[in-house]
Amino acid sequence: MDKLKVAVLGATGMAGQWFMSLLEEHPYFEVVAVGASKKSAGKKYREAVKWIIPKPFPEKYGDLVVFNASNADELKEHVDLIFSALPSEVAGDIEIKYLKKGINVVSNASPFRLEPDVPLMNPDVNPDHLELLKYQKRWGAKLVKNPNCTTAVLTMPLKPILNEFGIEDITVTTLQAISGAGFAGLPAYAITDNVIPYIAKEEYKVEVESKKILGKLEGNEIKPATFDVEATATRVPVLDGHTEVLYIKTRRQVDAELVKDVLRSYRSRVQELNLPTAPRRPLIVMEEVDRPQPRLDRLNDKGMAITVGRIDITAKGRVRMVIVGHNLLRGASGVSLETAELMYKEGYIT
Amino acid sequence: MDKLKVAVLGATGMAGQWFMSLLEEHPYFEVVAVGASKKSAGKKYREAVKWIIPKPFPEKYGDLVVFNASNADELKEHVDLIFSALPSEVAGDIEIKYLKKGINVVSNASPFRLEPDVPLMNPDVNPDHLELLKYQKRWGAKLVKNPNCTTAVLTMPLKPILNEFGIEDITVTTLQAISGAGFAGLPAYAITDNVIPYIAKEEYKVEVESKKILGKLEGNEIKPATFDVEATATRVPVLDGHTEVLYIKTRRQVDAELVKDVLRSYRSRVQELNLPTAPRRPLIVMEEVDRPQPRLDRLNDKGMAITVGRIDITAKGRVRMVIVGHNLLRGASGVSLETAELMYKEGYIT
Amino acid sequence: MDKLKVAVLGATGMAGQWFMSLLEEHPYFEVVAVGASKKSAGKKYREAVKWIIPKPFPEKYGDLVVFNASNADELKEHVDLIFSALPSEVAGDIEIKYLKKGINVVSNASPFRLEPDVPLMNPDVNPDHLELLKYQKRWGAKLVKNPNCTTAVLTMPLKPILNEFGIEDITVTTLQAISGAGFAGLPAYAITDNVIPYIAKEEYKVEVESKKILGKLEGNEIKPATFDVEATATRVPVLDGHTEVLYIKTRRQVDAELVKDVLRSYRSRVQELNLPTAPRRPLIVMEEVDRPQPRLDRLNDKGMAITVGRIDITAKGRVRMVIVGHNLLRGASGVSLETAELMYKEGYIT
Amino acid sequence: MDKLKVAVLGATGMAGQWFMSLLEEHPYFEVVAVGASKKSAGKKYREAVKWIIPKPFPEKYGDLVVFNASNADELKEHVDLIFSALPSEVAGDIEIKYLKKGINVVSNASPFRLEPDVPLMNPDVNPDHLELLKYQKRWGAKLVKNPNCTTAVLTMPLKPILNEFGIEDITVTTLQAISGAGFAGLPAYAITDNVIPYIAKEEYKVEVESKKILGKLEGNEIKPATFDVEATATRVPVLDGHTEVLYIKTRRQVDAELVKDVLRSYRSRVQELNLPTAPRRPLIVMEEVDRPQPRLDRLNDKGMAITVGRIDITAKGRVRMVIVGHNLLRGASGVSLETAELMYKEGYIT
Repeated sequence: MDKLKVAVLGATGMAGQWFMSLLEEHPYFEVVAVGASKKSAGKKYREAVKWIIPKPFPEKYGDLVVFNASNADELKEHVDLIFSALPSEVAGDIEIKYLKKGINVVSNASPFRLEPDVPLMNPDVNPDHLELLKYQKRWGAKLVKNPNCTTAVLTMPLKPILNEFGIEDITVTTLQAISGAGFAGLPAYAITDNVIPYIAKEEYKVEVESKKILGKLEGNEIKPATFDVEATATRVPVLDGHTEVLYIKTRRQVDAELVKDVLRSYRSRVQELNLPTAPRRPLIVMEEVDRPQPRLDRLNDKGMAITVGRIDITAKGRVRMVIVGHNLLRGASGVSLETAELMYKEGYIT
Repeated sequence: MDKLKVAVLGATGMAGQWFMSLLEEHPYFEVVAVGASKKSAGKKYREAVKWIIPKPFPEKYGDLVVFNASNADELKEHVDLIFSALPSEVAGDIEIKYLKKGINVVSNASPFRLEPDVPLMNPDVNPDHLELLKYQKRWGAKLVKNPNCTTAVLTMPLKPILNEFGIEDITVTTLQAISGAGFAGLPAYAITDNVIPYIAKEEYKVEVESKKILGKLEGNEIKPATFDVEATATRVPVLDGHTEVLYIKTRRQVDAELVKDVLRSYRSRVQELNLPTAPRRPLIVMEEVDRPQPRLDRLNDKGMAITVGRIDITAKGRVRMVIVGHNLLRGASGVSLETAELMYKEGYIT
Repeated sequence: MDKLKVAVLGATGMAGQWFMSLLEEHPYFEVVAVGASKKSAGKKYREAVKWIIPKPFPEKYGDLVVFNASNADELKEHVDLIFSALPSEVAGDIEIKYLKKGINVVSNASPFRLEPDVPLMNPDVNPDHLELLKYQKRWGAKLVKNPNCTTAVLTMPLKPILNEFGIEDITVTTLQAISGAGFAGLPAYAITDNVIPYIAKEEYKVEVESKKILGKLEGNEIKPATFDVEATATRVPVLDGHTEVLYIKTRRQVDAELVKDVLRSYRSRVQELNLPTAPRRPLIVMEEVDRPQPRLDRLNDKGMAITVGRIDITAKGRVRMVIVGHNLLRGASGVSLETAELMYKEGYIT
Repeated sequence: MDKLKVAVLGATGMAGQWFMSLLEEHPYFEVVAVGASKKSAGKKYREAVKWIIPKPFPEKYGDLVVFNASNADELKEHVDLIFSALPSEVAGDIEIKYLKKGINVVSNASPFRLEPDVPLMNPDVNPDHLELLKYQKRWGAKLVKNPNCTTAVLTMPLKPILNEFGIEDITVTTLQAISGAGFAGLPAYAITDNVIPYIAKEEYKVEVESKKILGKLEGNEIKPATFDVEATATRVPVLDGHTEVLYIKTRRQVDAELVKDVLRSYRSRVQELNLPTAPRRPLIVMEEVDRPQPRLDRLNDKGMAITVGRIDITAKGRVRMVIVGHNLLRGASGVSLETAELMYKEGYIT
């Protein structure tokens, strides 16, 4: 089989680097073009990028010449799909340019995530939401979005619990990794020996994106889930991997062992299709009292699984758990890639 | 006035070092004896201690010769009061030896905290609980306990809210500092670039100790407060200062501004008495969206104030706030000292 | 006595914050104007600054309105002296504007440090170099520079050794703190769990600035010291305080005890004059085998002393020592202030 | 081919965990027994170990039952070789017990490293030293030692330089990782936001072990290399990977490019034999001005290569370089395994 040709936009940033690494030996996709900011344009990728992620540099793509991503006309190669890791501030306008040229876009950036005709995909959770694309007609090509990293992690254990027990409300406190702010987004002097109890817009995003992802597709629209959300986002001195402390009030009464069973046995369409980037087990439940831990568990199952621990029923009858997921894999580049794999297998990219 | 003579037990540990520093120039108390483990006994304090806290070594006490704290007969000096920073595993038995010799003990260690006749003191919160000492008769002298560090921090903002609005339930996630585990309690390899979502017994302590401290003294007993508690304790790579993310369901409806007012204006008996270690303002409310932060706020008002931020009302109508307090000052040595000051001023030590 | 009126330029950065803190209660100087970048101009200092240093905000200066430092005409108040903590990239041109208006400038920024008529002052080391000002005539007022932080720390122990034993060569490896790069100069993702063995231009600066500071004033010029320098600069995950591992080949043979004596007994003109910011003992020698340590020793003697340990004679007969000094106090704002105090006492500011 | 059967002693510690991980799929060796301290004895390996290294737990060995390593009689399985990761305090006596039972031992522990009849092996550097085993007759079986981690890293670039240019002296300052102290060897409170400029016995070990490894085998003895060594060892807040700043005075004059060539082209017997654990290129020279960095380079070539950067000639004509190597792979378990592979291929284990 010939691989599909793809471009990566924002290829020099951290999410972009993960894309390039994950796509070095991918069975469906081959990178033929890399876009970045104007100042990188014209350089070879290996010279334009300051390689920082904990994976070897993908030598195979080192000699690709970077084009200026903000000018869609500079993309000369034919591509079947674009992965966008552009900064949210500029992504909206730029992505539309490519859509109008007839190129499908799978994007991590925040604009359009809440638009009714744009699927917000976390494929282990809502693979059926892709069908929304049938009603997305405003551009020549299709736009698919992935959620912010915190939500991508959070909705994984919520899905089977919603399915089995219903959810009335959740309270979530996040302990988020440095890399969530981008490579240079957080000064070392700010976070060393410290916690910062605020991440701009994050709590709002968690609330609305979670409800959309966990919503029901009815005809041409998503009916959002209706549970209440209380969220507090903090930043901690951890390189990669978001930790989230989660309380869930279920509609039906549960006990801890039942919750563990439901999480452990959860599988979705992406496991059925055996997608290359999909985790074999989306939810890994640990019994050790001091797990999960971000440094030890962030890379479980290629960084695509969520590791869950400390499952218990509280004095208020809520389910308590601590979860860890990789913010740049499960939470960004990995989830985009898994989305594209699903699109490909389900016939949305041809 | 002649100062009261005191001994510090466990003087070489971190809480012990804070005691020695705080007592270097104290208006009421003077250290005349320092106790530690057998292996330190016989050495000068300056040689026995590996000074590590961020304060200068108290030269004044450097030549005191350490005695073996586990043998009460080795304390030769007359003392009016003992401050105990002994490890909880051994504290129970040892403290009783001194009580039986007729020496009052103010202690940070966990044994006896929940005994009905032992006041569990966080003086800005429950100064009236000292009266329980009138009914404490089983030893020749009086035993007073301080809560664990997390509870000492937590109960500070809870008190005015309980007073003004009532509390139905609370959900608290803690991000606790390394020093809470003692100097050598946490290996560097365990916590660097990591979060550990578990601290042994901490969640249980938070629940029961909070309810006792916020309970009502009725005759010779404390009627514990009755709210539900959901608590999850985590350890983060921060040297000192516990951060706690807190949700409170009040009995009466509130708005955020009212909560801020109530916290800002809270004062207690210790402010009235102007105790040397008491914070001028027990609760500092910050409006900056990214505060409080442990590195920046742990030492506010001598490390005795709690700094509060991100006050908001959630989708569920609960009060959300983030609080920071110094785990070794507000949470250990400082609170013991403030307790002793209150005891002195209220006539419990003579 | 009326205090001299001063302005601080670059008052919102980290060195600027230290200036403002150190000048809150200074016996000679009073801040009457604060300059910063255009985007801060017009705001009150308390609103323009993101206060981050480990000292309380100087409330006294909170309502001063920031002016645009790059436009010297916007400084409306009369000032006797300017402290410049401007970024080196812009400092050169801006400082000259003030000099031409007849205002003396004491500056941390790198331009002009090596000019023959500009004294490069580390007052505990080369107080006599101030005399160079008599020959500095190109501007209406006087310009005095301070060395880069690493050199300010390094030249302190070198001075007495040069005096007593002569120096043939030195080899120095630095382990520099994050704050040396400025508040936002170093991304957290770059330095967490890491060492960066490079700091732009630092090794060159150490070499040439050290030789100038340790040089001899002869008439209207400084004859630089002639020892060879091997320097390697690294960045480590430490907030404040530079550690330097130093080997010195002396001209005359020494033993370790003699070196300790010489360091301990060193005093200079600034101790003689008892300047407010001068350390009482410029060099603190520790015998503990694992000291100095930046977190424990950076604030010794107001952050102005250098702490020295691990003094030994190597297999090659060189003197080995490890030194720690505060990069923003001894290495920046403190050394500027001490310089200004010396200028004042020696009659250079009137 | 049947694999050789091996036991790992000290299998629950960090070096032991690396052994178990590296031996999970090894072409020559198969673990049939795991020894640890008495308190682990009788448990399954998966229960006895607190898995902490950044590699998946080797499930294959999870059900092996741990025996008490200090009692050689408890080793019931036949083994051809023992890998010892025992703590140095107890290793000497215990290893002899196994030697006397006729089992060869390859050990990381410090006792016997300097004995004249014991080869101290860093196989990329001194593969010929294995011949010393012909003269080692005091026990029934053969004892081979590996150097301490710092020396294992250091001697790699020294070897080709010694070969090509001769070495007169070296000055080395190390910035060593936390894991060098063992899992619980370093309290988090000691090293967070800090540098500790001392590691017990390390500087002495570097000196004497380097000279032995770089010495010449002449008949039945090693003539140590004769260069002078100045070494200072510091600990920095890095998880894994030692950084060393190195100055080398060569006997013949060199320039930086020549040094790079010599390092890049260096190969030894282990590359010739294509040993499974040997790095393909023992020395990776980087031109980027800010490399090597421990977090980015510690795992280069399976953690067995040394990454070298900042090569330059100093004012004193010495070669300056910064090197990074993995202290637990190149510096402990990896180097032991590579040694055993060499022994096997050279016919020392049969």
